[in-house]
Formats: sequence, structure tokens, C-alpha cells
Amino acid sequence: MKKLSTLLTGASVVGAGLVLASHGAFAQDAAAEAAEAAAAPGVPFIFNTLLFLIAGFLVMFMAAGFAMLEAGLVRTKNVSMQCLKNVGIYSIAGIMFWLIGYNVMYDGVDGGYFGSFTWTVIPDPASDTGDYAAASDWFFQMVFCATTASIVSGTIAERVKLWPFMIFVVFLTGVFYPITGAWQWGGGWLAEMGFSDFAGSTIVHSVGGWAALAGALVIGPRIGKFGTGGVVHAFPGSSIPLATLGMFILWLGWFGFNGGSQLALGSMEDASSVARIFVNTNMAAGAGVVVVMILTQIFYRKVDVTMALNGALAGLVSITAEPLAPSLLMSAIIGGIGGAIVVIVVPLLDKVKIDDVVGAIPVHLVAGIWGTLAVPLTNSDASFSTQIIGIVAVGIFTFVVSLVLWLILKAIVGVRPTAEEESLGMDAVEVGIEAYPEFGVGGQRM
Amino acid sequence: MKKLSTLLTGASVVGAGLVLASHGAFAQDAAAEAAEAAAAPGVPFIFNTLLFLIAGFLVMFMAAGFAMLEAGLVRTKNVSMQCLKNVGIYSIAGIMFWLIGYNVMYDGVDGGYFGSFTWTVIPDPASDTGDYAAASDWFFQMVFCATTASIVSGTIAERVKLWPFMIFVVFLTGVFYPITGAWQWGGGWLAEMGFSDFAGSTIVHSVGGWAALAGALVIGPRIGKFGTGGVVHAFPGSSIPLATLGMFILWLGWFGFNGGSQLALGSMEDASSVARIFVNTNMAAGAGVVVVMILTQIFYRKVDVTMALNGALAGLVSITAEPLAPSLLMSAIIGGIGGAIVVIVVPLLDKVKIDDVVGAIPVHLVAGIWGTLAVPLTNSDASFSTQIIGIVAVGIFTFVVSLVLWLILKAIVGVRPTAEEESLGMDAVEVGIEAYPEFGVGGQRM
Amino acid sequence: MKKLSTLLTGASVVGAGLVLASHGAFAQDAAAEAAEAAAAPGVPFIFNTLLFLIAGFLVMFMAAGFAMLEAGLVRTKNVSMQCLKNVGIYSIAGIMFWLIGYNVMYDGVDGGYFGSFTWTVIPDPASDTGDYAAASDWFFQMVFCATTASIVSGTIAERVKLWPFMIFVVFLTGVFYPITGAWQWGGGWLAEMGFSDFAGSTIVHSVGGWAALAGALVIGPRIGKFGTGGVVHAFPGSSIPLATLGMFILWLGWFGFNGGSQLALGSMEDASSVARIFVNTNMAAGAGVVVVMILTQIFYRKVDVTMALNGALAGLVSITAEPLAPSLLMSAIIGGIGGAIVVIVVPLLDKVKIDDVVGAIPVHLVAGIWGTLAVPLTNSDASFSTQIIGIVAVGIFTFVVSLVLWLILKAIVGVRPTAEEESLGMDAVEVGIEAYPEFGVGGQRM
Repeated sequence: MKKLSTLLTGASVVGAGLVLASHGAFAQDAAAEAAEAAAAPGVPFIFNTLLFLIAGFLVMFMAAGFAMLEAGLVRTKNVSMQCLKNVGIYSIAGIMFWLIGYNVMYDGVDGGYFGSFTWTVIPDPASDTGDYAAASDWFFQMVFCATTASIVSGTIAERVKLWPFMIFVVFLTGVFYPITGAWQWGGGWLAEMGFSDFAGSTIVHSVGGWAALAGALVIGPRIGKFGTGGVVHAFPGSSIPLATLGMFILWLGWFGFNGGSQLALGSMEDASSVARIFVNTNMAAGAGVVVVMILTQIFYRKVDVTMALNGALAGLVSITAEPLAPSLLMSAIIGGIGGAIVVIVVPLLDKVKIDDVVGAIPVHLVAGIWGTLAVPLTNSDASFSTQIIGIVAVGIFTFVVSLVLWLILKAIVGVRPTAEEESLGMDAVEVGIEAYPEFGVGGQRM
Repeated sequence: MKKLSTLLTGASVVGAGLVLASHGAFAQDAAAEAAEAAAAPGVPFIFNTLLFLIAGFLVMFMAAGFAMLEAGLVRTKNVSMQCLKNVGIYSIAGIMFWLIGYNVMYDGVDGGYFGSFTWTVIPDPASDTGDYAAASDWFFQMVFCATTASIVSGTIAERVKLWPFMIFVVFLTGVFYPITGAWQWGGGWLAEMGFSDFAGSTIVHSVGGWAALAGALVIGPRIGKFGTGGVVHAFPGSSIPLATLGMFILWLGWFGFNGGSQLALGSMEDASSVARIFVNTNMAAGAGVVVVMILTQIFYRKVDVTMALNGALAGLVSITAEPLAPSLLMSAIIGGIGGAIVVIVVPLLDKVKIDDVVGAIPVHLVAGIWGTLAVPLTNSDASFSTQIIGIVAVGIFTFVVSLVLWLILKAIVGVRPTAEEESLGMDAVEVGIEAYPEFGVGGQRM
Repeated sequence: MKKLSTLLTGASVVGAGLVLASHGAFAQDAAAEAAEAAAAPGVPFIFNTLLFLIAGFLVMFMAAGFAMLEAGLVRTKNVSMQCLKNVGIYSIAGIMFWLIGYNVMYDGVDGGYFGSFTWTVIPDPASDTGDYAAASDWFFQMVFCATTASIVSGTIAERVKLWPFMIFVVFLTGVFYPITGAWQWGGGWLAEMGFSDFAGSTIVHSVGGWAALAGALVIGPRIGKFGTGGVVHAFPGSSIPLATLGMFILWLGWFGFNGGSQLALGSMEDASSVARIFVNTNMAAGAGVVVVMILTQIFYRKVDVTMALNGALAGLVSITAEPLAPSLLMSAIIGGIGGAIVVIVVPLLDKVKIDDVVGAIPVHLVAGIWGTLAVPLTNSDASFSTQIIGIVAVGIFTFVVSLVLWLILKAIVGVRPTAEEESLGMDAVEVGIEAYPEFGVGGQRM
């Protein structure tokens, strides 16, 4: 990280940033790679690029995972809207990260707060001679940005208008996420301080969670969710199998999310590290599921399948800040506590009347904080105090700017449909196409 | 391409063909690869093979994408049939491409019109010493062939009998697609003329589109689709989330479709090119979505989710003819115009009473033509005149042979169910298994 | 295999086992690899590791495939339960394989019957210097173990209680599967005898099938499945598109399942072998589909879509014992016979009143036996007598221990819900969340 400036090859050209921040994969293998590069010029470059591409398409597919998870957990009358939003989010994220996000996050941050507000230029393949293809790095970072935005749509589903939401996504993916990302992965002040967040428990998941929380507070709960006298009405999701599919796609994608964050595959140690990350990532998710199954059986005498799905995701979020250092046992413990967080926090949110449709706040925000706090347990380079500073700083920034933007949107264009529109469902009102038109369910019936 | 004969290792043995046509990846890296090969014998071979395998399984999964897209966009009473057809298409394509397709397309075309009508023999791994594993190339080419056939089933869904359709697929995948493929990717006359179609806007997507159009004309629209006085009845699809899932799977698969068409990963420049293709491919799709969202909001005051899904696909088809040369901005423009094509062409087809159930004609045929025409905008090796010659030649051939085959099938075995059968739905009539039997929807109710 | 002890680097450390058993990929390429390793130290290690990781995530995704296949083939009132079970299975398999399974299967088996009952320790990446990353091997083997358990849940769906089933999974993944796995892939007595099962027609699929059969016998058929006088009532599955999706995901995963079982990618011959395995695997599946389509058309005058899906899977299981040696023609024949097995065995099971909800017994058990028997047809190192010994030995062991465990579970905790609970459906009784609550289907209606 110290040699950031010498590594940068051009101000607005992609591919200079990531090498340096937080992971340090290259530094520790310098000798091995030098030897290898001498023997086979270009081979580590190809392996590193391939890692970014494979991990990148796995994370890209998480967009489908979020779409299915959320389509399965909203009511039928809002399923088309949730599908549309997730398609739109992923599309807009790609465009905004190109227009400004990537360079805000990586171009010349150099210990500071953000990079340059310029668009990304992909170099010609013939002159692309870093440690990996510049475009592969851009792709990998872009899909992370998209993931952050996907988190928001789940929490505030069923009662937010399409276009205000999309405008929020424009700012989240183009500006908010890249700024806090710059602090850490862009080599900014948090990275210099020694904050440790390998694959983004804080930088991705909590950021999405804070933005979602701000939205939930501004927009308020769905009509009828919270009755008088503390009564909470369950609004069961429309399709458990779609939600299950979404969870499995996300679990699959997480191998790319965490494994790709090693940022290198061109040495034996890097390859071995990626493999270890796969195993730890899987163990944390599995432990999250098992803990939820046991706890919900004890508490409710039934096993709650949507909590079990969220248990996997919370386990995954928890291990994301440090998927390399832990042993298998520690991975299971870290992920298992993530699962417990779901069981504990979901009813707590209901108590304070925050309506989180898919449970994204416990999964991404609370488990994200837990995972970040847990880093020093297994990684001696991290300290609790610095972890707390990072969590709080990223949290305050993201929550405040998100809150302000939601309030501005509310004041200027309005974020919430009318009560009648909400009852009809967003599909009838804004999409015009019901999710399952032949089943006589949806707007007409309400 | 000039040295085709020296590269061929055996008349009916797989793996000789592709090196030469249209992409030229090997030629331009010859020096670099020679150096590398000296240092690490076999490494480029392994990388190239791995690219084909990874890209191949991504494209293979597009079969699931088409199945879900089409299952979601047909009415409930035809969903099982659409699932069955897509399973059958992918299976038959693999068998026909083995029995004759591959060698028709690649074996000894040598500037001509087609290769040999012989089956594929996979060489023994111990004696497999080309630039990549012969079987990996076969696999990658086969999944492209299957994709072409999948396009057809969507357009003519809900009113074609199973077995005549399957017979059409036998000829399309065994003969029609391989012949026009031979013209270009097999090193035939179109390739010699300088036609440029990197990953198949014309060779795959337009071919599928022309075959679909011929089918739609012979078979006619679904009963009740077009009323008197120009009235068009919307037949909404059975499941928007399944269609959304299908689109996301196709988007995922397209990284393999376009990225794998670089045909090599064994040098730094190849790896960098694949990465750039990923990024451009994604950008075109995202732009297609955003353009559709904006245009449908303006035209219809609602955002049409199925058009948005098709916007992504049209963006992808548009960039497929040249995903390497464009900048990110040009990729967004090319893909965005693809999205606009969907919004414009879908109602036009209704006007001329062509019933295209899933919108495959705008997406694969029209956007495929657009993408092919756009190549000279960013690739100076291509010319508009040659592009037009290729588009027209491939179009005339495919449309005519498809039309003739559909007419023969109509005359001999009949392609269309009776009106009563069509009303009952194909699931009840030919599959015998309803898609969702417990919801009281389907044959019984009609 | 003879030099097992010298290869082992530590009693309870992962990564020592697999090299030696049954496949011999390393042995035959020793010279080539030595040369290559000299030129580019670490490159084969990275390729081998990458193969395990890619193949591993593909096989991991098969958990989603099984979940969707089974969710689609059970009735609506049991869909949530089936989703929950599949999430739980994959999670528990990962934990049990870590706690004891892996070392039982691979640690010091040395011609014997099982390894050590110790947990897995993943070595530090910096000291991970075998032929591949130890963790990548563990990951790949673990997802195989999970697959085995997924097979069981389909057969005995809709009438088994959650927790007894999960306890069975604990033993199957922690003890039963690893023991017979040790016999062969761990370098135990079957491997020494010359039994040949490349990727697990017997070791994975038949084991799952035998465990399922034992469960079906102990638990009995669903209420109402078999009427008096040999009447069999069809209980159609809830969603054909979900089942179709599940099948496609499994087909995709099988490229990892069989391709990864080459266990090496670090030489040209290994890469070429993996490619050939992809092609053969695909051909067998496609032939399975086509055979089922033709046979069901002939026998029933309709094409049975669920049988077609199972035809693909049976083709895949059939080729799994030997996906490398066959020609494409032999692969098609082997897979096609797998498809015929489905058409023949499904009604036979009904005749003997064994209720196999998803058809896992014909697909995984019977086709698994067929595939194992077929090995000597194309691989001269295998003999029919040894194949039969392996099939019988693995079958007897797995069936007996499974039967005993099911009987113990039945005696102590009970495995079957009450008739009333079964009528209500497992979702209402044990999960508390209906799969599609807004369609008025499920518990309430029964």
C-alpha cells in the first residue's frame, strides 16, 4: 500500500487501483512471482485476469440471485416490479460505475477521501501490461458495486415508486458506494489506518444495509404491516422456491465475491489462498443455516425456511470481512453467529416498526458489522479499535447521505405511491404487467 | 486462413477449423506465444482449452435461460411444452452437431460453401497437440449451434406440434446452421470476402431469427391474437419472475458466448481481450435495459418489464458481432440502439400480424442485423458493403430453406394442432402434464 | 496407489488422498509434468487447483438443482419443506464432511476400509506444496458428499419428518458415504482390487439411491399413492418449469462433477481429457433425453416431460463411471440406455409399490449400476467381475446401514408424520410457511 503512487500507471485508466489496498496478495508473493514470471512471461497475468473474470461472472449472477430472492419474498402484486428493479439496478450500476464510480473509487485516492470524477477508459489489449487485464479488474469491481444496490431494493420493496428508487441507485452506485470504497479499497485514509475488510462486510454489505435502513425510515412501513398494540402482521412471500433459488445463486456467487477478492491467482500461494477462502466461505454459510434451523425450532417449534435462507446469507456476510485467515472451526463460529443474528434481529426490527421486507438489514447490515468486528479474532494485523472506526465512519457517511437523498427525493418527486396504489400493487400501477396474470391474483383482487 | 490445409490434421477430426476464421487471435500473437511456449510448453494449450470449457458451460446454461424465458412468456397451458421443447432442442443439437453439423461447418470448407457430411471423431487426449483440446472446441461450437435452435422455439410457441418442430430442429442444427456457419467461421467464402461477425450476431442470432420468422409465417398467429380492425390482444406470459431469471441466465451465458469467441486465452493480449469483451458485452446489455425503461415510460407511462428483459437481450445481440473493438461508450450506444429496436419493432410486428410470442424476431433477427451493420463503426477491417452482403446472403439462405422445410412439414405431417387442441393447450394435448396442476389452470378450464 | 504412504504429508491434513486412487492422471503424465514444472514452477499446481475450484462450484450449484427439481416434483403443500431440506442437506454435509467425513474417506485408508475419525485441518497457503491446493481438493470432495445426500430427499419426499431426515443426513454424509468412498477413492480395498468408477456412478449415485431405497421401504408410500387392485394414483408435481430448471442446473453441474474428476488440469493431456469428458457427458445426457422422448411417445402417445428430465439425469449418471474412455457413439449408447432405464423402471417401482417421488431410484441407483457395469465396454483396465463386486459390496453396505438407521430412527423418534399431518402437508406442519401462500393452495384446502 505504501507504494501506491509508483504503481499507478495513468490517472484515468482502469486497473491501477486495487493491487495495493487491504489484501496485499502481490506484496507477499513478490519473490515467487518474479521467479515464475521469468520462466513464463505473462502466465501470472493470465491467471489473475482469469480469476477476475470467473469471480466476476459469479458475482454478476448474484443479480439474478437477488432478483429471485426478492421476487419470492414480496407479495404477488409486487413481483414484476421487484424483477424490473433488479434488472434496472444491475444495468444502472454498470453504467454509473463506468461514468464516474470506478475512478472516484480508484483513481488517485492516495490516502485521501475519493478519486477523480472522470469516466473509465479501458486500455487497448496490446498495451495492457499490468499484473492483470485492466478490464477484468473493472468488471470485478463493477459487479461489487451492483451488489450493494441490490441490497437496498429488498428492504424497501412493495412501497416505493420505481423512478425515485432508480435515481437513488444512480447516486448510490455512482457516488456513495465509490466514496467509502475509496477510503478502503482505493487506498484511502481507512486503508492507511489499517482497517481490514477483505471482501466487503462493511464496504459492500453494510453500505447497502445503511442505505436500506435510511430508505426504510424515510419511506415507512407497508400499509397494514404494524397494527395497533404492537401487533405485527406477517406478509408471507409469494414463492418460497424462488427465494430458495435466489439464496443458492447468492451462495454460488459468494465464491466469486470472496475468492476473487484475493485479487491474484498467479502464484501457488494465491491459488491456495483462493481455495481456502472457498472452504471458509462455505463453512460460514452452512453454519448460519444450521444455527437458524436449531434456534427457530427451539423458539417457534417450527423451522422457519425464510430465516434459514437468511441464515446462509448472514453467515456469508459475516465471513466476508476475513475469509482467509480463520480456521474451519472459526469460520463456522463466525458464520453461526451470523445466523443467530438473523433470528434475534428480525423480531427486533418488528418491535421498532422498521419494515424490512426481505430481512436485508439483519443480513447485510448487522451481520456485516459483526463480520467486520470479528476480523481481529483471526487476523492479527487488524485491531478492534480501527475496525470500529471504519464501521462507524462508513456507517455515518452512508446513512447520512442516503437519508438526505431519500428526503430530497421525498420532497421533490415523492417516493411513495398513494395508499390506493400500494394496495393495488406496484405491478398494476407502474409496471402494467402482473407477475402471474392467469392466477387471478394481484391488483384486480385487492 | 491461408494456411488452413497445413493446420488440418485429419479430414473428419475435430479441432482443425476454428483457428483460422475471422478472429485471427493466434496470428497476431504468434511471436508472444512462441516465446511463451518455449518457456512453458503446453501452458497456452491449457489456457485456450480452459477458455473453451468455461465459455462452453456458460453458453450451455443458456439452454436453461431460454427455457425459463419462454416458460415465463407463454401462457400457463403451454408451459410444460415449452420446457420439454427446450430440453429436446439442446439434446438434439448436441447429437446432430456430432453426426454431421460440426464437420459440415468446419471440415475442409476452404473458401467454399460447406464441409464434409461426416461425423465428429474426438482424438485421443494423448495425441491432441493443436493449440487447444479438440474436444473443447467441439463443445464450444456445439453450444452455439444449440443456441440458434432455442431462438426459434420462442417465436412460434403455443401453436406448433412437438414432433414437426423437433424435425425442424434436426435440420436446423445438423444442416442449415452449419452451412452458413461454414461460410464464415468455417473459413468459407464469406470469411474470405472479409465479412466480420465476431461471435454471431448474424451467424447465430439472425439465423435463429430468420428460421423463426419463416416458421411464424407458415404457422400463422395464435388463435385470437389478432382481432378484426387491427385489434391486438395481449396474451400475458405466465410468470414474470421465470422470464426474468431466464434473461439473467442468458446475460450470464453471454460472457461465455462473446468472451469465448476470442478463441484463445494463452497470451496476455488474449486474456486482456477476453476481459474487454466481458466489459463491452455487459455495457451493451445495461444500455439496452435503460433505453427500454426510458422509452416505455415515455410512450406508455409505464415501464414494460418484458420489453426491459428483451432490451437486455437485444443489447447483447447487438454487441455480439463486434464486442472487442468498441470503447465503452460505443458499446453503450450499440446496445442502447438494440434496446430501442425492441420498443419499435414489437408493435410493428403486431401491425403486420406476425405473432412472435417472446419477441425473438426483434431481439435476435433485427438487433442481429443492426449489430452486424455496426461493426465497421469500430472495426476498420470491416466494410459496410461486405457486412450487407453477409447479412443478405445468410438471411436469404436461411429464410428460404427454413420456409421450404416448414412448408414440407406442413404438407406432409402438419405443423399446427387443431383449434380445439390449441385452446386446450399443448400441455394437455401432447405432453399430458400440466405445468402447475394444482392451480386449476390449464386445459380443463378452457 | 502403491506409494500412498510416501505421498501422505500428515495424518489429518487434507489433500493427501485423492491423487492416488482410481484415476491415475498424475502417474501417466509424470514426465510431461516434470518438464513443465521445471519451466514454470507452480503452474500445474495452479491449474489443478483452479480445476477443483471451478468444478467444485459447479457441483455446489447442483444443490440448487436438486432443490428446484424436487420442489417442482412434489405437491404444493410440501414445497417449502423440500426447499428447506435441500438447504439443510448441503449445509450439514459441509459440516459433517469437515468434522469426520473427509478424513474417514481419505486419511490413511491404505488398502483398508476407512481412514481416521478426525476432523479436517486446512494447511496454511504458504506451506501448501502438493500437486494442488489442499483446500481445493477438500471443497471438491465435499460437494460430492453433499450430492449423495440430495439424492435421498427426493425419493422419500412428502412423508418424512424434518429432523429424523436431518439426522439420517448427518450419518450419511459423515460416516456412510465416506466409508464406501474410502474403499475406492480413498485408496481402499476396492481400489486395490481394480474397481473402476471415475466420477461416482456407484460411489455417489448408487450410494444415494440405496439410502433412498432403504428409506422408502421403511417409511412406506404416501397416503393414497397406491389404491386397491394395483391402481396407482399420479400425484403430479407442483411446477414443471422449476423441475426443468433443476434438471438444467444439474446438467450444468455435471460438467464439474465428471470433468473435475480428472483431478488435474496441469498438462496438455489432462486438459484434453477434461474436454473429452465434457463432450461425452453432454452426449450421454442428450441421448438419454431423446430416447425417453421417443419411447414415451411410442408407449403413451404423449411425451412425458418429467421422464424426459429424468432421462437427461439417467444419461448423466450412466456416463459418470467412465466419461473419458468412450467414443461419442459409445457415450450416446451408454446414456441412451440410461434413458430407457427410466421409462422401464418407473412403472416397475409402482408395481412393487415403492413410492419414489422424483424418480431418484431409477435415475441414481439403477442407472448408476448400469453405468458402472458398462465401464469394461470402453475401458480395458476394468473387468466385469470386479465391477460387480464393487456394485454389490457398496450396495449391501449402504443399504444395510441405511436400513438399520432408518429403523432405529423409526423406533426412537418416529420418521413419519401422522396421516392428518401428511394430508395437511409438511409446509403447514413443520415449516409453518406455505410455498405459495396467495394461491389458496396448501394446508387450508385439504
